[in-house]
Amino acid sequence: MSERVGRASIRLEEPVYITESASIVGKKEGEGPLGLLFDVVGEDDLFGCTSWEEAESVLQKQAVSLALEKAGLKAEEVNLLFAGDLLGQSIASSFGVSAFRIPHFGLYGACSTCGEGLALGAMAIAGNYAEKAVCVTSSHFASAEKEFRFPLDYGNQRPLSATWTVTGGGAFVLSRQADRKKAEKNNICYYWDTTNTSVGKNTQMSVGARARISGMTIGIITDFGLKDSMNMGACMAPASASTLERHFIDFGSQPSDYDRIITGDLGSVGQKILIDMMQKKGYDISAQHMDCGIEIFDAQAQDTHSGGSGCGCSAVTLSAYILKQLEEKNWKRVLFMPTGALLSKTSFNEGKSVPAIAHALILEAC
Amino acid sequence: MSERVGRASIRLEEPVYITESASIVGKKEGEGPLGLLFDVVGEDDLFGCTSWEEAESVLQKQAVSLALEKAGLKAEEVNLLFAGDLLGQSIASSFGVSAFRIPHFGLYGACSTCGEGLALGAMAIAGNYAEKAVCVTSSHFASAEKEFRFPLDYGNQRPLSATWTVTGGGAFVLSRQADRKKAEKNNICYYWDTTNTSVGKNTQMSVGARARISGMTIGIITDFGLKDSMNMGACMAPASASTLERHFIDFGSQPSDYDRIITGDLGSVGQKILIDMMQKKGYDISAQHMDCGIEIFDAQAQDTHSGGSGCGCSAVTLSAYILKQLEEKNWKRVLFMPTGALLSKTSFNEGKSVPAIAHALILEAC
Repeated sequence: MSERVGRASIRLEEPVYITESASIVGKKEGEGPLGLLFDVVGEDDLFGCTSWEEAESVLQKQAVSLALEKAGLKAEEVNLLFAGDLLGQSIASSFGVSAFRIPHFGLYGACSTCGEGLALGAMAIAGNYAEKAVCVTSSHFASAEKEFRFPLDYGNQRPLSATWTVTGGGAFVLSRQADRKKAEKNNICYYWDTTNTSVGKNTQMSVGARARISGMTIGIITDFGLKDSMNMGACMAPASASTLERHFIDFGSQPSDYDRIITGDLGSVGQKILIDMMQKKGYDISAQHMDCGIEIFDAQAQDTHSGGSGCGCSAVTLSAYILKQLEEKNWKRVLFMPTGALLSKTSFNEGKSVPAIAHALILEAC
Repeated sequence: MSERVGRASIRLEEPVYITESASIVGKKEGEGPLGLLFDVVGEDDLFGCTSWEEAESVLQKQAVSLALEKAGLKAEEVNLLFAGDLLGQSIASSFGVSAFRIPHFGLYGACSTCGEGLALGAMAIAGNYAEKAVCVTSSHFASAEKEFRFPLDYGNQRPLSATWTVTGGGAFVLSRQADRKKAEKNNICYYWDTTNTSVGKNTQMSVGARARISGMTIGIITDFGLKDSMNMGACMAPASASTLERHFIDFGSQPSDYDRIITGDLGSVGQKILIDMMQKKGYDISAQHMDCGIEIFDAQAQDTHSGGSGCGCSAVTLSAYILKQLEEKNWKRVLFMPTGALLSKTSFNEGKSVPAIAHALILEAC
């Protein structure tokens, strides 16, 4: 059951559970502040492959594999898979998840894809179109630089407003029941073994679910005419402000109703703009706002400038950090709002602006 | 209300209506066998723009505009928009539909996107997540050649198995009620006026709805290892056979239950393979099978080889021809199954295969 509480805001009367999730990241992400929380950290960013695109497909494949394993599910027990990435024609997803043979919806929401997938997945579960659904997204620093900017070998300079695309994949198992199986709970971090293309058995399972999705607000493409692909935080801030304002109005809520209001990858530049824009709309979110892109790297020490970005950024931070806080009841309710910049190399080269979108989900401790 | 009748097959107990739709195509499509049925035919394929990508965005924009106008709806009355195209990062959609400011789900299903959008749109309507939803897809011959193969100026040769990407955009308004407003019904074909970037008033409306969606089977990515991007019919046939077989099993139906079983863009090469594959699975679909790619062009006279292809191919054929047959009760029930080849220029150049997917929808006369 669900109830529309606005044009595109939905309250799920019977919540949808994120029973399990998994995260796999590259070396740099493993060295960052959240490094110890990820399920798998790669020794290098090729993950045993010969191309960056294939490596990104491994991120998708392993994230889904591990999430299913944690949930005690076989691929054939999953009704629907929602998958997306940043590459042209979403090839990281198509090649990454095809072996599971799960009925598939391909998504493109740029770095908002994790939010888009969870929203559609939750709608599918709550509407009884699926008993189990999996949502997966990924990004890879090297494949993204090649896709959007320059080959790594070119060694281009990056302004301080630029973000660093996260190498990572995150997968989430959605279910109508909080039916996660019991298992020993050990906080183990696996390191990728290049001689062995699978990851070891995970023993982090506990009874119930990691969190529940109780509502959502679907994003509107917002384009303020900004054209700087090296300052995507600024391009995306207006879209997240638009979604956030509609969310507060539709749900009759306010910033203090959430322990955290979490954007995907605005970075430090975009964060300031969002807080300012919300202030002008009458909402002070400065105490609650958190950005996955800021959390995932130590910008100073790791030279990532404005922060992390990419579909994988919000996905792995959700899996490794945010859901852990909800699971441990440190937070009771958060608004998770991945943000996406809808540009391409072609649109950028043709002098177009960078439209953006952000989808918001209410996540609650079970 | 809806009922799952298989792992990823859904019967909509209360059907979802396609109340209105619109199609806009390029010059070549206008000269084809269905030419007189399209709502708008361009005088050239630039539609008043200076780049092929912008021209494709116009296809999306005008298709949505015209569908809303026919349905007597304002953009702000629409809850959700499902949009996708073939270009990297779906820029034809993002730039084409952003001005409507409708809450947006970006999709990537290659040429199956029309089926993916209608499936998710129908799920959203039936689940009461939306009162009105719009689904739109497009493709453009020139932007697709540039994106997937070679610039047009290169003048590359095309084998007989190759298909010709349709320049076209199709949009569909979904609703829980068959609430299309009454208007005069005239079969008028508009020609694009390059001095005027809008299309004239459409008077094709009639009471009720064009058709209803009563069920669906979601596709599974299927990869037989074929690598020939100039023979996408062969790459996609196994995916459509997989969906079709699951559909027949899940719904307990057989080919004769449908007046037509309609694939998106297998072309004449893919059609033969699909019919053969289904024969081996025990289903003779030779009497019912129809392919939008075969219908849209006169392959001999228009030199399109195996047939038409692209997201736009199935979308404009659905809007202009298939829904017309259902509306006029010439057909009572069809299975509409757009097919998509999930390759990219990068995956092709890296020597990867061409995975494919197909989603099936049961469309019935009202």
